This record gives sequence, structure tokens and C-alpha cells, in this order.
Amino acid sequence: MQTAAILLIGNEILSGKIRDENASWLAVRLRALGVNLRRICVVPDEPDAIVDELLRIHATVDHVFTSGGVGPTHDDVTMDSVARAFGVEVIDHPELAALIRSFYGEGTLAGHLRMARVPDGTVLVAGGDIRWPVCQFQNVYILPGVPQLFRAKFDAIADRFREGAFYLRSVFLDADEGSVVDVLRDLEHRFPVAVGSYPRFGDPDHRIRVTIEARAAAPVDAAVDALVAALPPAIVLRVEAPVGQRLDEK
Amino acid sequence: MQTAAILLIGNEILSGKIRDENASWLAVRLRALGVNLRRICVVPDEPDAIVDELLRIHATVDHVFTSGGVGPTHDDVTMDSVARAFGVEVIDHPELAALIRSFYGEGTLAGHLRMARVPDGTVLVAGGDIRWPVCQFQNVYILPGVPQLFRAKFDAIADRFREGAFYLRSVFLDADEGSVVDVLRDLEHRFPVAVGSYPRFGDPDHRIRVTIEARAAAPVDAAVDALVAALPPAIVLRVEAPVGQRLDEK
Repeated sequence: MQTAAILLIGNEILSGKIRDENASWLAVRLRALGVNLRRICVVPDEPDAIVDELLRIHATVDHVFTSGGVGPTHDDVTMDSVARAFGVEVIDHPELAALIRSFYGEGTLAGHLRMARVPDGTVLVAGGDIRWPVCQFQNVYILPGVPQLFRAKFDAIADRFREGAFYLRSVFLDADEGSVVDVLRDLEHRFPVAVGSYPRFGDPDHRIRVTIEARAAAPVDAAVDALVAALPPAIVLRVEAPVGQRLDEK
Repeated sequence: MQTAAILLIGNEILSGKIRDENASWLAVRLRALGVNLRRICVVPDEPDAIVDELLRIHATVDHVFTSGGVGPTHDDVTMDSVARAFGVEVIDHPELAALIRSFYGEGTLAGHLRMARVPDGTVLVAGGDIRWPVCQFQNVYILPGVPQLFRAKFDAIADRFREGAFYLRSVFLDADEGSVVDVLRDLEHRFPVAVGSYPRFGDPDHRIRVTIEARAAAPVDAAVDALVAALPPAIVLRVEAPVGQRLDEK
């Protein structure tokens, strides 16, 4: 199973000015593609912090996705930081520069051309109908922080990460967690499934949502049946119809 | 200025099942309190990942806030992981056990009492009107992942982190980033302010939001005036009234 990490370069998220939309979106997409997301980290727009985190994670997962810090402004330090982490120079990529010149024409400014600066060794990955290719340096995919662009760029290259979807069902309970903990633990021992337990407080709908998932439907269905059989009927509010298989269509 | 890091223990966030509500909320609160949030990290519910991240961050910031993994279920591994990171044992905290017994009375189960297990040396911090105190181990505040409880517990202890608010203004532009990058860079050189630039695509309201902030109003107001004066009037859509001072009242 492929693994991934997301690195958000985002003062605006750390300062609470902007709420992350990229990691939460990509987490769902990666799950649907069958990629195991191991880590999300938000660091400031500071080369030291970015280099440090890249050095730490890039060898521990198959793919790293960065978000942010790639515009033309002074706080856009991602390209330099990736280059420093891997010990290469930043170069003007001739193909990117040509794309920029052909797009802006006479109006091309130095600020626009700064977007052609990438770590030496960067591969341009095209796909879908995006105007600008995705910059890939080794196993690091350098994506923009603007949500619309982040999504369009990832979707353009998503197929290369596809492995197979997860199958997920939920059981909603009217119970407190302490009273069902043993039943849930037992379930993971008996079936090849992952069990999650998510309490709510003050929600009239339910008190716990139990999720059961695996790559195949059969063990999930069997575990759901076993769970319902093991609990007092009065606390089982409902069993959700299967979600998944086509999670990526959501 | 105090610094902080947030560590989310959250398989459910990495798998895209649940969207983070805690780090994004706490980022806003910390900013309003005058605390510099340096890092947000989401790791799986696995002791190795939690220990590793705690060891890495706890000495680099003043305060660490963890979210999640503290319920009674089998995937609640935070207390053990904090203990392991700091080389102490997990003990049954007599005061917590007494609170649990007095709350559940005759109905007290082993699952409930598991909530009294904390790293040896944990300090219970009470405040506000929360039923259960916050567990603090050295500079690590161990908070629950359920958003309602996370918020109530943080708010109960928020006063100890208060330092002073930020003052923030936004200027909305109809321009592309490349054409204003030099003006923005210049602004940070001339005034003691932090400048942010957030492009939108396909948004009829504006194309760039520029944020200018500092701990005092005067340099922010001066930088806003200087920015507006430096730009062609046609691209300045509007200047937002000051936000801040009482950001924490939001």
C-alpha cells in the first residue's frame, strides 16, 4: 500500500486567518485512491521549518504533497526550501518560462517569471486540462496553496496514485463509550477490519458513531453483524448502508 | 512572545472520515490570545508516531496541545505515549478516579476508570465550569478530540495563555499577484507589519486579499494607507475596517 504525507506551508493557517481546505480535501481523495496518508503537518513560511520537515518525512513515505508558498510574492519560499533540503540549486526552468511568456505575452513581468524558478531536477507532470503542469521533485509534488488550483492540479495527476478503494460502514449508538469499549476491541481481534469510535455530546441524533472499514466488503459486513448482535438492541440507533467502492466519485 | 504547537492524534482525520475542527479553532483562539502557533501536526493513533513527534516538538515551543486519543477505547493511546516520550510510568490518578466514581456511582465500569490513567507527574488544571479538569504534563496539555469537549476544556484554561491581541486589516484587490508583488515586499521593509497575500480564482468578489497585521494599530493603519497610495485606484476594491483588539470576543 502506498503511503503519503501532506506538508502545508501556511502562516495563514497557523495564525487562524484562513482555515485549511487542502489537507482535508486531499485526505478524502487519497483514501478513495487507496493511498495511506500517514501525516499532515502545517509549518510557517520559513525555509528552516520547511527544510527540516522535508528532511524528516520524505524518506518515510512514498509521496509528499506540499501546499502553498509557490506564488510570486516574497513569502513564497517553497521552491528554495525543497532545493535546499535535497542539496540542489534553484534554476529557471526553460519550459515553464516559455509557458509563462506565451501566456502573458507583452505583459510578462519579472513577478510572473519568478514562477519558473524550480529545484534543479524538477520534472513537469501534465495531465487533465490544467494550464500549468505540476512540479515534481523526486517524491515531492509541489502544489499551490490556493484551493481551486490545488484541487485542479492534484486531480490532473490523481490517476498515478490509484490503487483501490476502501469499504466503510457506520453504526450509530445511543450509549457512552465506556460501556462498549470491550465489544469494539473484540471486533478488531475477530475480523480483519479497522474500527473507529466517535462520540458526540449534545447531539440529539446519536452519542457514538462506530465506523468499520476494510478493503473488502465481506469482513466489514460480518463485523457489522457481529457488533449489532453483541449489543443490547435498544442502544443500536441505526446501521448505515455501505459507503465506499466508489468513494472517489463523491 | 509565547509559542505553541498542536498535535492532533487522529486516524479519522488522516483517512478523511472526519474534518479537523480543533486545530483550526485553536489557531484562531491562540492568535487572539497573543500566542504564536508554530506548528500543527496530525499523526496516526500509534504510540511510535506520537512519541516521535512529542520528542521533536516539546522543547521547541512553550506549550503543546494534544487533541484526541484520550477516550476509553483501544485506540486511545495518548496517555501511554506522553508517558513514554517523557520516560515516566502511567498511573491511576487518585483524584481523577474519585471524580469518575462520584459521577458514575454504582454504574462505574472498568472502561470509565480507564480515564483516570495518566502519566506520573500529571497536574490537574481546573477552571471555568468544566466537569473534568485538564491534564497537564510538563508543557503538554492533553485535550480530548471531541470538538465540544476540546473547546470547553481549552476555554477553561485559556486565561493562562493571554498576552495581547493582534490588529489586522485587509485590502481587497482586483489584480494578479505578479503585478503587486514588489509593492507588498516594499511594505514589509518600510513598516513593522506582517503582510499576507491570498489570491482567489473564479471568485467574483476579489482576486487578491492582502492582510496587514501587527500588535499595534498605528503601523497597520500607516501601511494600509501606504499600500492604497502605491496602487492604481482602479484595482483597489475596498479596505476592510479594522479587525482585532477584541479578536478573542469573536
